[in-house]
Amino acid sequence: MRSLLLVAAAATLVGAAPAKNLPTPTDIVAKAPASAWKTISPDDLLVMDLANGGRVVIQLAPAFAPVHVANIQALARSNYWNGASVYRVQDNYVAQWGNNDSDKPWPSGVVANPPAEYTQPLKGLAITPLGSPDAYAPAVGFSDGWPIAYAPKAGWADLAHCYGSVGVGRDLSPDTGTGGELYAVIGQAPRQLDRNIALVGRVIDGIDRLSALPRGTADLGFYKDKAQNVPIASIRLASAMPAAERPAYEYMDTAGPTFARYLHVRANRHDAFYIRPAGGVDLCNVQVPVRKKA
Amino acid sequence: MRSLLLVAAAATLVGAAPAKNLPTPTDIVAKAPASAWKTISPDDLLVMDLANGGRVVIQLAPAFAPVHVANIQALARSNYWNGASVYRVQDNYVAQWGNNDSDKPWPSGVVANPPAEYTQPLKGLAITPLGSPDAYAPAVGFSDGWPIAYAPKAGWADLAHCYGSVGVGRDLSPDTGTGGELYAVIGQAPRQLDRNIALVGRVIDGIDRLSALPRGTADLGFYKDKAQNVPIASIRLASAMPAAERPAYEYMDTAGPTFARYLHVRANRHDAFYIRPAGGVDLCNVQVPVRKKA
Repeated sequence: MRSLLLVAAAATLVGAAPAKNLPTPTDIVAKAPASAWKTISPDDLLVMDLANGGRVVIQLAPAFAPVHVANIQALARSNYWNGASVYRVQDNYVAQWGNNDSDKPWPSGVVANPPAEYTQPLKGLAITPLGSPDAYAPAVGFSDGWPIAYAPKAGWADLAHCYGSVGVGRDLSPDTGTGGELYAVIGQAPRQLDRNIALVGRVIDGIDRLSALPRGTADLGFYKDKAQNVPIASIRLASAMPAAERPAYEYMDTAGPTFARYLHVRANRHDAFYIRPAGGVDLCNVQVPVRKKA
Repeated sequence: MRSLLLVAAAATLVGAAPAKNLPTPTDIVAKAPASAWKTISPDDLLVMDLANGGRVVIQLAPAFAPVHVANIQALARSNYWNGASVYRVQDNYVAQWGNNDSDKPWPSGVVANPPAEYTQPLKGLAITPLGSPDAYAPAVGFSDGWPIAYAPKAGWADLAHCYGSVGVGRDLSPDTGTGGELYAVIGQAPRQLDRNIALVGRVIDGIDRLSALPRGTADLGFYKDKAQNVPIASIRLASAMPAAERPAYEYMDTAGPTFARYLHVRANRHDAFYIRPAGGVDLCNVQVPVRKKA
Protein backbone atom coordinates (compact mmCIF):
# COMPACT_ATOMS: atom_id res chain seq x y z
CA MET A 1 0.00 0.00 0.00
CA ARG A 2 1.38 3.40 -0.96
CA SER A 3 2.43 5.12 2.24
CA LEU A 4 5.67 5.70 4.08
CA LEU A 5 4.82 3.03 6.62
CA LEU A 6 7.89 2.64 8.71
CA VAL A 7 9.46 1.78 11.97
CA ALA A 8 10.65 4.95 13.66
CA ALA A 9 14.32 5.24 12.96
CA ALA A 10 17.11 4.75 15.45
CA ALA A 11 18.17 8.14 14.24
CA THR A 12 15.09 10.24 13.56
CA LEU A 13 14.44 11.20 9.96
CA VAL A 14 16.31 14.42 9.34
CA GLY A 15 13.87 17.19 8.52
CA ALA A 16 10.77 15.47 9.90
CA ALA A 17 9.03 17.87 12.26
CA PRO A 18 8.25 16.18 15.56
CA ALA A 19 4.57 16.66 16.43
CA LYS A 20 5.31 17.58 20.02
CA ASN A 21 8.32 19.81 19.40
CA LEU A 22 10.46 17.78 21.76
CA PRO A 23 14.09 17.16 20.83
CA THR A 24 15.08 13.79 19.42
CA PRO A 25 18.51 12.23 20.01
CA THR A 26 19.39 13.32 16.46
CA ASP A 27 18.39 16.92 17.21
CA ILE A 28 20.62 17.02 20.26
CA VAL A 29 23.60 15.68 18.34
CA ALA A 30 23.00 18.08 15.44
CA LYS A 31 22.91 21.10 17.76
CA ALA A 32 25.75 20.03 20.06
CA PRO A 33 28.23 22.88 20.61
CA ALA A 34 31.89 22.48 19.63
CA SER A 35 32.74 22.08 23.32
CA ALA A 36 30.76 18.82 23.41
CA TRP A 37 33.26 17.05 21.13
CA LYS A 38 36.70 15.52 21.70
CA THR A 39 39.11 14.70 18.88
CA ILE A 40 40.39 11.14 18.50
CA SER A 41 44.18 10.89 18.29
CA PRO A 42 45.35 9.71 14.84
CA ASP A 43 47.40 7.06 16.67
CA ASP A 44 44.11 5.61 17.91
CA LEU A 45 42.45 5.43 14.48
CA LEU A 46 42.89 2.13 12.71
CA VAL A 47 41.90 2.38 9.04
CA MET A 48 41.05 -0.95 7.38
CA ASP A 49 40.72 -0.81 3.60
CA LEU A 50 39.12 -3.84 2.00
CA ALA A 51 40.33 -4.88 -1.43
CA ASN A 52 36.82 -4.19 -2.77
CA GLY A 53 37.15 -0.51 -1.88
CA GLY A 54 35.19 -0.51 1.36
CA ARG A 55 36.67 1.22 4.40
CA VAL A 56 36.18 0.37 8.08
CA VAL A 57 37.49 2.82 10.71
CA ILE A 58 38.17 1.66 14.26
CA GLN A 59 38.83 3.80 17.34
CA LEU A 60 41.33 2.10 19.65
CA ALA A 61 41.01 2.23 23.45
CA PRO A 62 44.58 2.33 24.81
CA ALA A 63 43.40 3.29 28.30
CA PHE A 64 41.57 -0.03 28.66
CA ALA A 65 43.91 -2.58 27.05
CA PRO A 66 47.31 -0.86 26.71
CA VAL A 67 49.46 -3.88 25.80
CA HIS A 68 47.01 -5.30 23.27
CA VAL A 69 46.50 -1.86 21.71
CA ALA A 70 50.26 -1.27 21.52
CA ASN A 71 50.54 -4.63 19.75
CA ILE A 72 47.88 -3.63 17.24
CA GLN A 73 49.64 -0.31 16.60
CA ALA A 74 52.93 -2.17 16.03
CA LEU A 75 51.22 -4.67 13.70
CA ALA A 76 49.66 -1.81 11.69
CA ARG A 77 52.99 0.04 11.44
CA SER A 78 54.70 -3.08 10.12
CA ASN A 79 51.94 -3.75 7.51
CA TYR A 80 51.21 -7.08 9.16
CA TRP A 81 47.69 -7.20 7.73
CA ASN A 82 48.50 -6.45 4.08
CA GLY A 83 47.02 -9.45 2.30
CA ALA A 84 45.02 -10.55 5.33
CA SER A 85 41.28 -11.29 5.08
CA VAL A 86 37.94 -11.41 6.83
CA TYR A 87 37.53 -15.16 7.19
CA ARG A 88 34.65 -15.54 9.65
CA VAL A 89 31.21 -13.92 9.69
CA GLN A 90 28.77 -15.49 12.15
CA ASP A 91 25.24 -14.12 12.06
CA ASN A 92 24.13 -12.10 15.08
CA TYR A 93 27.62 -12.44 16.54
CA VAL A 94 30.95 -11.39 15.03
CA ALA A 95 33.00 -10.73 11.90
CA GLN A 96 36.65 -11.73 12.38
CA TRP A 97 39.78 -10.97 10.37
CA GLY A 98 43.56 -11.38 10.31
CA ASN A 99 46.17 -13.82 9.03
CA ASN A 100 44.63 -16.92 10.56
CA ASP A 101 46.01 -19.27 7.94
CA SER A 102 49.52 -17.93 7.51
CA ASP A 103 52.82 -18.48 9.27
CA LYS A 104 53.57 -14.78 9.28
CA PRO A 105 55.91 -14.13 12.22
CA TRP A 106 55.21 -11.39 14.76
CA PRO A 107 57.09 -8.20 13.92
CA SER A 108 59.47 -6.84 16.54
CA GLY A 109 57.85 -4.88 19.31
CA VAL A 110 54.87 -7.23 19.58
CA VAL A 111 54.29 -8.84 22.97
CA ALA A 112 53.42 -12.44 22.12
CA ASN A 113 51.65 -13.15 25.39
CA PRO A 114 49.98 -10.02 26.75
CA PRO A 115 48.46 -9.93 30.22
CA ALA A 116 44.72 -10.54 30.55
CA GLU A 117 43.56 -6.94 30.10
CA TYR A 118 39.93 -7.84 30.69
CA THR A 119 39.20 -5.52 33.62
CA GLN A 120 40.88 -2.61 35.32
CA PRO A 121 40.60 -0.89 38.69
CA LEU A 122 37.50 1.27 38.95
CA LYS A 123 39.39 3.82 41.04
CA GLY A 124 40.37 6.90 39.09
CA LEU A 125 37.82 6.46 36.28
CA ALA A 126 35.39 9.34 35.73
CA ILE A 127 32.02 7.69 35.06
CA THR A 128 28.62 8.92 33.85
CA PRO A 129 26.17 6.27 35.11
CA LEU A 130 23.60 4.93 32.65
CA GLY A 131 20.82 5.13 35.21
CA SER A 132 19.09 1.91 34.08
CA PRO A 133 19.45 -1.64 35.41
CA ASP A 134 21.81 -4.10 33.71
CA ALA A 135 21.67 -7.89 33.50
CA TYR A 136 25.44 -8.47 33.47
CA ALA A 137 27.08 -6.13 35.99
CA PRO A 138 26.21 -4.26 39.18
CA ALA A 139 26.42 -0.96 37.27
CA VAL A 140 27.02 0.39 33.76
CA GLY A 141 27.77 3.77 32.27
CA PHE A 142 30.29 5.73 30.21
CA SER A 143 33.91 6.69 30.77
CA ASP A 144 35.67 9.05 28.37
CA GLY A 145 33.38 8.08 25.51
CA TRP A 146 33.29 4.32 26.13
CA PRO A 147 30.45 2.12 27.36
CA ILE A 148 31.63 0.33 30.48
CA ALA A 149 30.39 -2.10 33.11
CA TYR A 150 31.61 -1.73 36.67
CA ALA A 151 31.30 -2.99 40.22
CA PRO A 152 31.33 -0.22 42.83
CA LYS A 153 31.91 -2.67 45.70
CA ALA A 154 34.35 -5.08 44.06
CA GLY A 155 36.15 -2.15 42.44
CA TRP A 156 36.54 -3.30 38.82
CA ALA A 157 35.54 -1.77 35.49
CA ASP A 158 35.66 -3.12 31.94
CA LEU A 159 34.74 -2.15 28.42
CA ALA A 160 31.34 -3.58 27.49
CA HIS A 161 30.65 -5.66 24.37
CA CYS A 162 28.21 -3.64 22.26
CA TYR A 163 27.35 -3.56 18.56
CA GLY A 164 30.57 -2.53 16.77
CA SER A 165 32.92 -3.38 19.65
CA VAL A 166 36.30 -4.71 18.50
CA GLY A 167 38.14 -7.39 20.46
CA VAL A 168 41.08 -9.76 20.25
CA GLY A 169 40.40 -13.35 19.19
CA ARG A 170 41.96 -15.87 21.53
CA ASP A 171 42.11 -19.59 22.12
CA LEU A 172 41.31 -21.16 25.48
CA SER A 173 42.60 -19.46 28.63
CA PRO A 174 45.33 -18.55 29.67
CA ASP A 175 45.96 -17.45 26.05
CA THR A 176 44.78 -13.83 25.71
CA GLY A 177 45.41 -13.42 21.98
CA THR A 178 48.10 -11.15 20.61
CA GLY A 179 46.08 -8.76 18.47
CA GLY A 180 46.68 -10.21 15.03
CA GLU A 181 43.18 -11.72 14.87
CA LEU A 182 40.43 -9.20 15.60
CA TYR A 183 36.64 -9.40 15.68
CA ALA A 184 33.83 -6.86 15.55
CA VAL A 185 30.39 -7.44 17.05
CA ILE A 186 27.67 -7.45 14.35
CA GLY A 187 24.62 -8.48 16.39
CA GLN A 188 22.95 -8.41 19.77
CA ALA A 189 25.51 -7.30 22.38
CA PRO A 190 27.32 -10.50 23.52
CA ARG A 191 27.84 -9.14 27.01
CA GLN A 192 28.64 -12.65 28.32
CA LEU A 193 32.09 -12.05 26.77
CA ASP A 194 32.73 -9.07 29.07
CA ARG A 195 35.65 -9.77 31.43
CA ASN A 196 36.46 -12.92 29.42
CA ILE A 197 38.32 -11.44 26.47
CA ALA A 198 40.25 -8.26 25.61
CA LEU A 199 38.25 -5.47 23.99
CA VAL A 200 40.46 -2.94 22.22
CA GLY A 201 38.11 -0.50 20.52
CA ARG A 202 35.05 -0.04 18.34
CA VAL A 203 34.09 0.47 14.72
CA ILE A 204 33.16 4.15 14.28
CA ASP A 205 32.64 4.19 10.52
CA GLY A 206 31.81 1.54 7.91
CA ILE A 207 30.50 -1.22 10.18
CA ASP A 208 28.14 -2.20 7.35
CA ARG A 209 31.20 -3.29 5.34
CA LEU A 210 31.41 -6.12 7.88
CA SER A 211 27.80 -6.59 9.02
CA ALA A 212 26.45 -7.00 5.48
CA LEU A 213 29.01 -9.63 4.45
CA PRO A 214 27.71 -13.10 3.55
CA ARG A 215 27.61 -15.35 6.59
CA GLY A 216 30.08 -18.22 6.71
CA THR A 217 28.53 -21.67 6.56
CA ALA A 218 31.20 -23.69 8.38
CA ASP A 219 31.15 -24.09 12.18
CA LEU A 220 31.29 -20.76 14.02
CA GLY A 221 30.65 -18.81 10.82
CA PHE A 222 34.03 -19.50 9.21
CA TYR A 223 33.89 -19.43 5.41
CA LYS A 224 33.88 -23.03 4.20
CA ASP A 225 35.78 -22.26 1.04
CA LYS A 226 38.76 -19.93 1.51
CA ALA A 227 37.87 -18.35 -1.82
CA GLN A 228 34.99 -16.74 0.09
CA ASN A 229 37.40 -14.88 2.39
CA VAL A 230 37.13 -11.13 1.94
CA PRO A 231 40.60 -9.73 1.12
CA ILE A 232 41.97 -6.81 3.10
CA ALA A 233 44.18 -4.39 1.18
CA SER A 234 45.69 -2.71 4.23
CA ILE A 235 45.18 -1.78 7.87
CA ARG A 236 46.99 1.43 8.81
CA LEU A 237 47.04 3.91 11.64
CA ALA A 238 45.70 7.30 10.54
CA SER A 239 48.92 8.78 11.92
CA ALA A 240 50.92 6.79 9.35
CA MET A 241 48.84 7.98 6.39
CA PRO A 242 49.78 10.96 4.22
CA ALA A 243 48.29 14.10 5.84
CA ALA A 244 46.00 14.79 2.89
CA GLU A 245 44.42 11.32 3.06
CA ARG A 246 44.20 11.07 6.83
CA PRO A 247 40.63 10.80 8.15
CA ALA A 248 39.78 12.57 11.42
CA TYR A 249 36.93 11.91 13.86
CA GLU A 250 35.59 13.26 17.11
CA TYR A 251 33.33 11.72 19.77
CA MET A 252 30.93 13.28 22.19
CA ASP A 253 32.33 14.01 25.66
CA THR A 254 30.34 11.63 27.86
CA ALA A 255 31.06 13.72 30.96
CA GLY A 256 29.40 16.84 29.54
CA PRO A 257 25.87 18.33 29.69
CA THR A 258 25.07 17.61 26.01
CA PHE A 259 25.64 13.90 26.49
CA ALA A 260 23.51 14.01 29.66
CA ARG A 261 20.59 15.36 27.59
CA TYR A 262 21.24 12.84 24.83
CA LEU A 263 21.22 10.00 27.36
CA HIS A 264 17.99 11.28 28.88
CA VAL A 265 16.08 11.35 25.59
CA ARG A 266 17.48 7.96 24.57
CA ALA A 267 15.83 6.54 27.69
CA ASN A 268 12.65 8.60 27.24
CA ARG A 269 11.77 8.70 23.55
CA HIS A 270 8.93 11.16 23.27
CA ASP A 271 9.21 12.30 19.67
CA ALA A 272 6.18 11.95 17.44
CA PHE A 273 6.41 8.22 16.75
CA TYR A 274 6.48 7.11 20.38
CA ILE A 275 3.36 6.61 22.48
CA ARG A 276 5.02 5.18 25.59
CA PRO A 277 8.59 6.21 26.48
CA ALA A 278 10.37 3.29 28.15
CA GLY A 279 11.85 5.26 31.05
CA GLY A 280 15.01 3.22 30.72
CA VAL A 281 17.54 2.12 28.12
CA ASP A 282 20.12 -0.58 27.56
CA LEU A 283 23.77 0.45 27.71
CA CYS A 284 24.31 -0.74 24.14
CA ASN A 285 21.36 1.26 22.80
CA VAL A 286 23.08 4.51 23.78
CA GLN A 287 25.69 4.68 21.07
CA VAL A 288 28.14 7.44 21.89
CA PRO A 289 27.90 9.94 19.01
CA VAL A 290 30.96 9.95 16.74
CA ARG A 291 31.36 12.09 13.63
CA LYS A 292 33.87 12.92 10.93
CA LYS A 293 35.79 16.07 11.68
CA ALA A 294 35.27 18.83 9.13
CA MET B 1 49.47 -16.48 12.92
CA ARG B 2 48.44 -20.09 12.37
CA SER B 3 46.10 -20.99 15.18
CA LEU B 4 42.37 -21.25 15.56
CA LEU B 5 42.20 -18.02 17.50
CA LEU B 6 38.56 -17.30 17.93
CA VAL B 7 35.83 -15.77 19.92
CA ALA B 8 33.87 -18.45 21.70
CA ALA B 9 30.82 -19.12 19.65
CA ALA B 10 27.29 -18.24 20.58
CA ALA B 11 26.75 -21.92 19.98
CA THR B 12 29.74 -23.86 21.23
CA LEU B 13 31.85 -25.59 18.63
CA VAL B 14 30.33 -28.97 18.02
CA GLY B 15 32.75 -31.66 19.05
CA ALA B 16 35.01 -29.47 21.20
CA ALA B 17 35.41 -31.14 24.57
CA PRO B 18 34.71 -28.69 27.37
CA ALA B 19 37.62 -28.71 29.82
CA LYS B 20 35.35 -28.82 32.83
CA ASN B 21 32.80 -31.28 31.51
CA LEU B 22 29.95 -28.87 32.15
CA PRO B 23 27.09 -28.68 29.67
CA THR B 24 26.95 -25.84 27.18
CA PRO B 25 23.67 -24.38 25.92
CA THR B 26 24.28 -26.35 22.70
CA ASP B 27 24.69 -29.59 24.65
CA ILE B 28 21.39 -29.05 26.43
CA VAL B 29 19.53 -28.38 23.19
CA ALA B 30 21.15 -31.38 21.49
CA LYS B 31 20.11 -33.72 24.30
CA ALA B 32 16.63 -32.29 24.88
CA PRO B 33 14.00 -35.04 25.04
CA ALA B 34 11.08 -35.10 22.60
CA SER B 35 8.82 -33.85 25.40
CA ALA B 36 10.77 -30.55 25.49
CA TRP B 37 9.52 -29.54 22.04
CA LYS B 38 6.24 -28.10 20.75
CA THR B 39 5.23 -28.14 17.10
CA ILE B 40 4.41 -24.86 15.36
CA SER B 41 1.04 -24.87 13.56
CA PRO B 42 1.46 -24.65 9.75
CA ASP B 43 -1.01 -21.72 9.88
CA ASP B 44 1.55 -19.83 11.96
CA LEU B 45 4.47 -20.42 9.59
CA LEU B 46 4.97 -17.68 7.04
CA VAL B 47 7.37 -18.77 4.28
CA MET B 48 8.98 -15.92 2.35
CA ASP B 49 10.84 -16.97 -0.80
CA LEU B 50 13.12 -14.34 -2.30
CA ALA B 51 13.46 -14.24 -6.05
CA ASN B 52 17.18 -15.05 -5.65
CA GLY B 53 16.33 -18.41 -4.09
CA GLY B 54 16.77 -17.49 -0.43
CA ARG B 55 14.09 -18.52 2.05
CA VAL B 56 13.08 -16.78 5.28
CA VAL B 57 10.67 -18.56 7.64
CA ILE B 58 8.65 -16.61 10.21
CA GLN B 59 6.69 -17.95 13.17
CA LEU B 60 3.55 -15.87 13.77
CA ALA B 61 2.28 -15.04 17.26
CA PRO B 62 -1.52 -15.00 17.02
CA ALA B 63 -1.93 -15.00 20.81
CA PHE B 64 -0.23 -11.59 21.07
CA ALA B 65 -1.57 -9.65 18.06
CA PRO B 66 -4.61 -11.60 16.80
CA VAL B 67 -6.04 -9.01 14.39
CA HIS B 68 -2.69 -8.13 12.82
CA VAL B 69 -1.77 -11.81 12.49
CA ALA B 70 -5.16 -12.63 10.92
CA ASN B 71 -4.51 -9.83 8.43
CA ILE B 72 -1.11 -11.26 7.57
CA GLN B 73 -2.61 -14.72 7.11
CA ALA B 74 -5.29 -13.25 4.80
CA LEU B 75 -2.65 -11.33 2.84
CA ALA B 76 -0.57 -14.48 2.40
CA ARG B 77 -3.60 -16.52 1.28
CA SER B 78 -4.43 -13.90 -1.35
CA ASN B 79 -0.83 -13.76 -2.68
CA TYR B 80 -0.67 -10.09 -1.75
CA TRP B 81 3.12 -10.12 -1.60
CA ASN B 82 3.85 -11.79 -4.95
CA GLY B 83 6.09 -9.24 -6.65
CA ALA B 84 6.74 -7.33 -3.42
CA SER B 85 10.28 -6.50 -2.29
CA VAL B 86 12.61 -5.78 0.58
CA TYR B 87 13.03 -2.03 0.16
CA ARG B 88 14.67 -0.90 3.39
CA VAL B 89 17.72 -2.27 5.23
CA GLN B 90 19.02 -0.02 8.01
CA ASP B 91 22.20 -1.19 9.70
CA ASN B 92 21.87 -2.36 13.31
CA TYR B 93 18.11 -1.85 13.08
CA VAL B 94 15.62 -3.40 10.65
CA ALA B 95 15.01 -4.91 7.22
CA GLN B 96 11.54 -4.03 5.90
CA TRP B 97 9.46 -5.43 3.02
CA GLY B 98 6.07 -5.24 1.34
CA ASN B 99 4.35 -3.33 -1.43
CA ASN B 100 5.28 0.13 -0.21
CA ASP B 101 5.25 1.68 -3.67
CA SER B 102 2.17 0.09 -5.14
CA ASP B 103 -1.53 0.88 -5.09
CA LYS B 104 -2.43 -2.74 -4.49
CA PRO B 105 -5.79 -2.76 -2.70
CA TRP B 106 -6.33 -4.76 0.48
CA PRO B 107 -7.87 -8.15 -0.24
CA SER B 108 -11.20 -8.93 1.41
CA GLY B 109 -10.97 -10.07 5.00
CA VAL B 110 -8.24 -7.57 5.87
CA VAL B 111 -9.03 -5.15 8.69
CA ALA B 112 -7.66 -1.83 7.43
CA ASN B 113 -7.34 -0.23 10.85
CA PRO B 114 -6.57 -2.86 13.48
CA PRO B 115 -6.61 -2.01 17.19
CA ALA B 116 -3.30 -1.14 18.85
CA GLU B 117 -2.25 -4.67 19.81
CA TYR B 118 0.86 -3.46 21.61
CA THR B 119 0.20 -4.96 25.04
CA GLN B 120 -2.19 -7.44 26.57
CA PRO B 121 -3.40 -8.28 30.06
CA LEU B 122 -0.81 -10.14 32.10
CA LYS B 123 -3.51 -12.20 33.77
CA GLY B 124 -3.78 -15.70 32.40
CA LEU B 125 -0.28 -15.83 30.88
CA ALA B 126 2.01 -18.61 32.10
CA ILE B 127 5.44 -17.01 32.49
CA THR B 128 8.95 -18.31 33.12
CA PRO B 129 10.81 -15.32 34.59
CA LEU B 130 14.25 -14.50 33.14
CA GLY B 131 15.71 -13.87 36.59
CA SER B 132 17.92 -10.96 35.51
CA PRO B 133 17.23 -7.21 35.66
CA ASP B 134 15.91 -5.38 32.60
CA ALA B 135 16.32 -1.75 31.54
CA TYR B 136 12.93 -1.41 29.83
CA ALA B 137 10.29 -3.14 31.94
CA PRO B 138 9.67 -4.13 35.56
CA ALA B 139 10.09 -7.80 34.59
CA VAL B 140 10.91 -9.99 31.60
CA GLY B 141 10.64 -13.67 30.82
CA PHE B 142 9.11 -16.21 28.45
CA SER B 143 5.54 -17.20 27.70
CA ASP B 144 4.77 -20.17 25.45
CA GLY B 145 8.09 -19.80 23.64
CA TRP B 146 8.12 -16.01 23.30
CA PRO B 147 10.34 -13.42 25.00
CA ILE B 148 8.07 -10.99 26.81
CA ALA B 149 8.24 -7.92 29.04
CA TYR B 150 5.64 -7.46 31.75
CA ALA B 151 4.55 -5.37 34.70
CA PRO B 152 3.30 -7.41 37.66
CA LYS B 153 1.72 -4.39 39.35
CA ALA B 154 0.30 -2.58 36.32
CA GLY B 155 -0.83 -5.91 34.88
CA TRP B 156 0.36 -5.70 31.27
CA ALA B 157 2.56 -7.93 29.11
CA ASP B 158 3.97 -7.51 25.62
CA LEU B 159 6.21 -9.26 23.12
CA ALA B 160 9.77 -7.92 23.36
CA HIS B 161 11.78 -6.65 20.38
CA CYS B 162 14.76 -8.98 20.02
CA TYR B 163 17.04 -9.94 17.14
CA GLY B 164 14.79 -11.53 14.50
CA SER B 165 11.52 -10.12 15.87
CA VAL B 166 8.97 -9.30 13.15
CA GLY B 167 6.64 -6.31 13.46
CA VAL B 168 4.17 -4.24 11.49
CA GLY B 169 5.41 -0.99 9.95
CA ARG B 170 3.17 1.94 10.76
CA ASP B 171 3.01 5.69 10.28
CA LEU B 172 2.43 8.08 13.18
CA SER B 173 -0.14 7.14 15.83
CA PRO B 174 -3.08 6.37 15.86
CA ASP B 175 -2.21 4.37 12.70
CA THR B 176 -1.22 0.85 13.78
CA GLY B 177 -0.27 -0.49 10.34
CA THR B 178 -2.29 -3.17 8.59
CA GLY B 179 0.29 -5.92 8.13
CA GLY B 180 1.23 -5.39 4.49
CA GLU B 181 4.57 -3.79 5.42
CA LEU B 182 6.65 -5.90 7.80
CA TYR B 183 10.07 -5.48 9.38
CA ALA B 184 12.55 -7.82 11.04
CA VAL B 185 15.10 -6.70 13.62
CA ILE B 186 18.69 -7.22 12.36
CA GLY B 187 20.68 -5.54 15.15
CA GLN B 188 20.81 -4.68 18.82
CA ALA B 189 17.36 -5.26 20.34
CA PRO B 190 15.40 -1.99 19.82
CA ARG B 191 13.43 -2.46 23.01
CA GLN B 192 12.36 1.21 22.97
CA LEU B 193 9.82 0.06 20.34
CA ASP B 194 8.14 -2.30 22.82
CA ARG B 195 4.54 -1.19 23.54
CA ASN B 196 4.80 1.31 20.67
CA ILE B 197 4.23 -0.93 17.67
CA ALA B 198 2.66 -4.33 16.91
CA LEU B 199 4.99 -7.32 16.98
CA VAL B 200 3.57 -10.32 15.15
CA GLY B 201 6.27 -12.97 15.20
CA ARG B 202 9.93 -13.80 14.65
CA VAL B 203 12.25 -15.13 11.99
CA ILE B 204 13.07 -18.73 12.88
CA ASP B 205 15.08 -19.68 9.80
CA GLY B 206 17.07 -17.71 7.21
CA ILE B 207 17.48 -14.41 9.07
CA ASP B 208 20.86 -14.06 7.30
CA ARG B 209 18.95 -13.64 4.02
CA LEU B 210 17.86 -10.29 5.47
CA SER B 211 20.70 -9.37 7.83
CA ALA B 212 23.42 -9.76 5.18
CA LEU B 213 21.63 -7.61 2.58
CA PRO B 214 23.36 -4.40 1.47
CA ARG B 215 22.33 -1.45 3.64
CA GLY B 216 20.19 1.22 2.02
CA THR B 217 21.85 4.60 1.68
CA ALA B 218 18.78 6.86 1.70
CA ASP B 219 17.30 8.17 4.96
CA LEU B 220 16.24 5.39 7.34
CA GLY B 221 18.03 2.78 5.25
CA PHE B 222 15.63 2.84 2.29
CA TYR B 223 17.30 1.86 -0.97
CA LYS B 224 18.00 5.06 -2.90
CA ASP B 225 17.53 3.43 -6.27
CA LYS B 226 14.50 1.12 -6.51
CA ALA B 227 16.60 -1.16 -8.68
CA GLN B 228 18.36 -2.11 -5.44
CA ASN B 229 15.12 -3.46 -3.94
CA VAL B 230 15.33 -7.21 -3.31
CA PRO B 231 12.45 -8.93 -5.11
CA ILE B 232 10.22 -11.35 -3.21
CA ALA B 233 8.86 -14.29 -5.23
CA SER B 234 6.14 -15.24 -2.74
CA ILE B 235 5.08 -15.21 0.89
CA ARG B 236 2.87 -18.17 1.76
CA LEU B 237 1.54 -19.90 4.83
CA ALA B 238 3.02 -23.37 5.24
CA SER B 239 -0.56 -24.64 5.51
CA ALA B 240 -1.21 -23.44 1.94
CA MET B 241 1.82 -25.22 0.48
CA PRO B 242 1.70 -28.70 -1.08
CA ALA B 243 2.23 -31.24 1.72
CA ALA B 244 5.49 -32.50 0.23
CA GLU B 245 7.05 -29.02 0.19
CA ARG B 246 5.70 -27.87 3.53
CA PRO B 247 8.43 -27.08 6.08
CA ALA B 248 7.78 -27.94 9.74
CA TYR B 249 9.40 -26.55 12.88
CA GLU B 250 9.23 -26.98 16.62
CA TYR B 251 10.28 -24.72 19.50
CA MET B 252 11.39 -25.51 23.00
CA ASP B 253 8.67 -25.43 25.64
CA THR B 254 9.71 -22.49 27.82
CA ALA B 255 7.66 -23.80 30.75
CA GLY B 256 9.59 -27.09 30.97
CA PRO B 257 12.67 -28.29 32.89
CA THR B 258 14.94 -28.46 29.81
CA PHE B 259 14.42 -24.78 29.08
CA ALA B 260 15.05 -23.98 32.76
CA ARG B 261 18.47 -25.66 32.49
CA TYR B 262 19.16 -23.93 29.18
CA LEU B 263 18.30 -20.55 30.71
CA HIS B 264 20.54 -21.24 33.69
CA VAL B 265 23.62 -22.02 31.60
CA ARG B 266 22.96 -19.07 29.28
CA ALA B 267 23.26 -16.83 32.36
CA ASN B 268 26.21 -18.77 33.77
CA ARG B 269 28.53 -19.70 30.93
CA HIS B 270 31.09 -22.02 32.42
CA ASP B 271 32.26 -23.99 29.42
CA ALA B 272 35.94 -24.05 28.64
CA PHE B 273 36.22 -20.63 27.01
CA TYR B 274 34.73 -18.68 29.89
CA ILE B 275 36.73 -17.50 32.89
CA ARG B 276 34.04 -15.46 34.59
CA PRO B 277 30.38 -16.43 34.18
CA ALA B 278 28.23 -13.29 34.21
CA GLY B 279 25.58 -14.56 36.62
CA GLY B 280 22.94 -12.82 34.53
CA VAL B 281 21.76 -12.55 30.96
CA ASP B 282 19.78 -10.20 28.75
CA LEU B 283 16.34 -11.37 27.64
CA CYS B 284 17.38 -11.12 23.98
CA ASN B 285 20.50 -13.22 24.50
CA VAL B 286 18.37 -16.22 25.45
CA GLN B 287 17.09 -17.18 22.04
CA VAL B 288 14.39 -19.77 22.44
CA PRO B 289 15.64 -22.89 20.62
CA VAL B 290 13.77 -23.63 17.37
CA ARG B 291 14.56 -26.48 15.01
CA LYS B 292 13.34 -28.07 11.83
CA LYS B 293 11.12 -31.04 12.44
CA ALA B 294 12.47 -34.29 11.11
